[in-house]
Parts: sequence; structure tokens; C-alpha cells
Amino acid sequence: MSAGFLLVLSGPSGSGKGTVSEKLMAKNDNIIFSTSVTTRTPRPGEVNGENYFFTTIEDFEQMVEEDELLEYAFVHTNYYGTPKKFVFDEIEKGEIVFLEIDVQGALQIKEKYKEAVFIFLLPPTMDELKFRLIKRDTESEEEINTRFRNAFKELDFVGEYDYFVVNNTVDDAVADIENIIAAEKLRVKRHKDIKKEIMAEKGEEL
Amino acid sequence: MSAGFLLVLSGPSGSGKGTVSEKLMAKNDNIIFSTSVTTRTPRPGEVNGENYFFTTIEDFEQMVEEDELLEYAFVHTNYYGTPKKFVFDEIEKGEIVFLEIDVQGALQIKEKYKEAVFIFLLPPTMDELKFRLIKRDTESEEEINTRFRNAFKELDFVGEYDYFVVNNTVDDAVADIENIIAAEKLRVKRHKDIKKEIMAEKGEEL
Repeated sequence: MSAGFLLVLSGPSGSGKGTVSEKLMAKNDNIIFSTSVTTRTPRPGEVNGENYFFTTIEDFEQMVEEDELLEYAFVHTNYYGTPKKFVFDEIEKGEIVFLEIDVQGALQIKEKYKEAVFIFLLPPTMDELKFRLIKRDTESEEEINTRFRNAFKELDFVGEYDYFVVNNTVDDAVADIENIIAAEKLRVKRHKDIKKEIMAEKGEEL
Repeated sequence: MSAGFLLVLSGPSGSGKGTVSEKLMAKNDNIIFSTSVTTRTPRPGEVNGENYFFTTIEDFEQMVEEDELLEYAFVHTNYYGTPKKFVFDEIEKGEIVFLEIDVQGALQIKEKYKEAVFIFLLPPTMDELKFRLIKRDTESEEEINTRFRNAFKELDFVGEYDYFVVNNTVDDAVADIENIIAAEKLRVKRHKDIKKEIMAEKGEEL
């Protein structure tokens, strides 16, 4: 009596979605991490089909043309995308597929596949967001300010999502997402015939 | 940053919704039990506005005419109904209002107020349902069979609900409902402007 679904965790840069995702996946080994397809060269130790599906630019662009991706982006010199086949195959098996992605990517997915569950991760405060961006220490003040303004603008898109989670602490945010997953498993709309299911499962007939 | 809502727990006779409701309310004193309006005479110790809103048949029928009830039913010789004002006032305050009701009542509410959260409680098996109906020991075999057939038919309406919960044990069913409540608190759609809320709460401005 379980029906799979795609869970999309998204939020602005500095919301902490990477850390929250890591903790969520570490705690829940029954959730399948969505594997991306990319044109970048594998790093030592990376396994095709595990870390990424590695492919050529030509093949990637053909996937785009044939609408085989839920979303994609061109970052620096490489393509990254989410293959429909992987996601839909796992959902078909009843699995929960998890995808952590930026706001632009999530909005692309929503256009193609609104049946996914969309969670927007919010920073606890704008001060904290700025603090997190500064803490990265890899960017100039100008870059930090640009990121901060972008993050502030991206908060406008929270209305497009199903749920919001405030990242006060990583543990609280993970617990909120776990609650959402537990509730979404009980959604009627993902089941064709619950009455039949409940009886078939028990091998009963009236 | 909390938005109230109406939670409707419903299911066929014998699904165990009464027991599950009692346990849920005992564990969660922040949930408001919806107070019904009725034309029956108060029993000793019953307080108007606490156990029920007691009223006359005339006044009740006027409430019906003026569309002041989310649902109502005539049972034996008395009217019972759910007053909109009570429910909406509490929701306005940010409260979660809980209502346990039969399937017919829930469907009435859905027509008038689809913004409520509808949970269908299922018996674990049809055998268990029959066992529960027999255990009541207050009805003839014929009455039990009628109730059983009605319950079986009512399972068809699960598709009208948002969530289903299988009542394997009372504790598991209560935990499932608590998960649904926790997730529904994080629903974006009940908030007008989360971006503003999160900043107003912290007294911040950009």
C-alpha cells in the first residue's frame, strides 16, 4: 500500500539545503537520491550510474531535444540535468526519490511534473542567510552581495511550492521534512483504489 | 507563522474513529475540538458552549436556512450540526480545529469548505470491521449486517478525501494523524506572504 513520489527540496543559496539533504539521506536509507546526468569528466573514484550518469555534450543535447530531462542547467562549461527515466522508474517501484536543487531547477520541474512534492527551505532570518554566505569565505564582498540579493529575490517563489520549512536548526528542518514524507505517504490521490488495495493486501473478498 | 485549519476525521461505522479521536485529543491539548450545535436536551452536567451549543428546533432550522452550518443531520428526533462561526473563528485565531464525523457529514463539509483537511480512517481488514461491529453487542444480527454493508459501501468515498489512515492500532493511527497535522502546518497555501512573515517575525528589514 505504498506509492512512490518525487520529493524536491529547494531554496536559495545559503538556506542550508545541502547540509539538510545530507542529514536527511544519512538518517533515511529508504529514500533514493536522484542521480543526475552530466557532461563533466568523472573525478577519480566516481562511478557512472552512482555519482552521476556521465555523458557527452552531444548525447545530453539530444536528451534535451527529446524531452528526457525534468530540468537541466548549463554551469560553467558543463551540463547537469535530472533524467526522467531514473526518477519515474523508481517511483513506479514505489520508491521516494529525493532531489535537492536550486530554485530555478525546481521551477523547471514544476512545469513538467507538478505531481512532485515541492519543499522550500527558508533561512531562519535574512541576517543568518548573509552570515552563511559570508562564512563560505570563497567569494569577494561583491559576489556575496550579489548572492544575497539573488537569495532575497528567490524567496518570492516560495508561493509556487507545496511546503515551507524554516531551517532554524538542521535537526528541526530534517524532522519537518520527515513529517512531510510520512504525511505524503498517506495521500489518497496517489492511489487508484484504496478499497481494493486494502482488501487485496489481506487476500480478502466480501 | 502558524495558520489554522479544520481537520476532519471520518470513516465508516466500526473504523474506530471515536477511539482514535479520544486518544488524539488526550495527547494534543493544542487542538480545538469542534463544538456541535444540537436541539437535544442537555444531560445533567453538560454545559452550553462546552459539550454542545444547545438550541431550539426553530433556531436550528433558521441556522440551516441562513447557511450557518458546515453540515447537519437529523438523528432520531434531534438535529446535530457544525456551526461555521465557531470553526472559522478558531481558524482565524490560528487554531487547528478537529472534527470527528461520519462519511455523509464529511462529504457535506467538503461541498461547503474544501479547504479543510479530510482524513479517512480505514479498518485494517473487513473481518476486523465486522468483529468490531459485533463486539458492540447492542444490535441484532440483521442490524450488524446492515451496518457492515453500509460500511463496505462507504469505503468507496475514500477517493474524496485528502489522506487515508489504516487503523491497525490506535497508537499507529494517532501517530499518522499527528504526522499529517505537522505537515499541514507547513503548507504554503495557507500563508499569504511567507517571505514577509518570516521577516516581520524577526523584526527585520532589508
